[in-house]
Amino acid sequence: MPHIPLPGHLPGITGLLEYSKDTAHPIRVLTQFLLRGKNSLAEGERELIATVVSHYNECKFCTAAHTAIADLLLGETETCELVKKDIDTAPISEKMKALLKIAVMVQVSGQAVTPEAINVAKQSGATDIEIHDTVLIAALFCLYNRYVDGMATVAPTDPQFYLGLGQRLKENGYNRLPNGYDHLKN
Amino acid sequence: MPHIPLPGHLPGITGLLEYSKDTAHPIRVLTQFLLRGKNSLAEGERELIATVVSHYNECKFCTAAHTAIADLLLGETETCELVKKDIDTAPISEKMKALLKIAVMVQVSGQAVTPEAINVAKQSGATDIEIHDTVLIAALFCLYNRYVDGMATVAPTDPQFYLGLGQRLKENGYNRLPNGYDHLKN
Repeated sequence: MPHIPLPGHLPGITGLLEYSKDTAHPIRVLTQFLLRGKNSLAEGERELIATVVSHYNECKFCTAAHTAIADLLLGETETCELVKKDIDTAPISEKMKALLKIAVMVQVSGQAVTPEAINVAKQSGATDIEIHDTVLIAALFCLYNRYVDGMATVAPTDPQFYLGLGQRLKENGYNRLPNGYDHLKN
Repeated sequence: MPHIPLPGHLPGITGLLEYSKDTAHPIRVLTQFLLRGKNSLAEGERELIATVVSHYNECKFCTAAHTAIADLLLGETETCELVKKDIDTAPISEKMKALLKIAVMVQVSGQAVTPEAINVAKQSGATDIEIHDTVLIAALFCLYNRYVDGMATVAPTDPQFYLGLGQRLKENGYNRLPNGYDHLKN
């Protein structure tokens, strides 16, 4: 049960974004820019960063939601699961392996990011802005995960919920959720 | 040295906000609303939350900056230092003690926030929105601290820098920094 009364039909982050619309708006704008804005990293690659950070933060709602979105964007369900198990052996580029390892370091703390990890990313072709965006996406999901779990929001157990949420986030993005809002209601 | 080239005259978060203005804008808006918007928690109390989270995340730049701002808002320099040492014995209200303890739990993880800590806060007079805002401010500073340190930004050692930054953030808030922008340049 959430620590404060939240809209009962809106689990996880969705109830918090409805509860506090003034803070929801900039959070949505930031997320839309980082995960859906023009970027040399594909949307699916950016969702992998969100997924792996949420996974290491053990945030059930965010992990399930962003796994669903990543799967939809990648067009298959294997990569996301393999990345969560072992980045090194996952079927992704060397650049993405290096960036996901940086994201996992950010999940621990900012100081955990090593110059060596940054160098590996650069040597595998990561640009400065890709490194910047990886760190900021990882930091943003450290915010989301703490917001969602720190308020003890409910995480549905039905995978269909996350498939539906993922489909709508894929279609509408993060800042247009109100357009498809009714669909979020279970 | 930062992991990517950043404006050399703008240390800590200030260089990152200049480097990536598209993401800086919603971050500024969110921070302004949470730390300076209409709220039953005083501005100084909200800065204490930012300070204690940055302190536990060992983010030198953010800790020094928000200590300076909190000190300016509180009109003295003792409370902030005592809060960083021991929340229980610091000269603050029982409600603030309870909220700061929740913030410290959020710093660890969302799951670390206990129903007991929430109940103590409620029994000491904290409202639902105060609890919500405490969790979100703490989560936001988990983002800031990771962004600042994950990019290995420079933290000036001169206390005068933070006093100047604090004074301008006190006067201008977080979303009007460009107005006083020249002053940030060392």
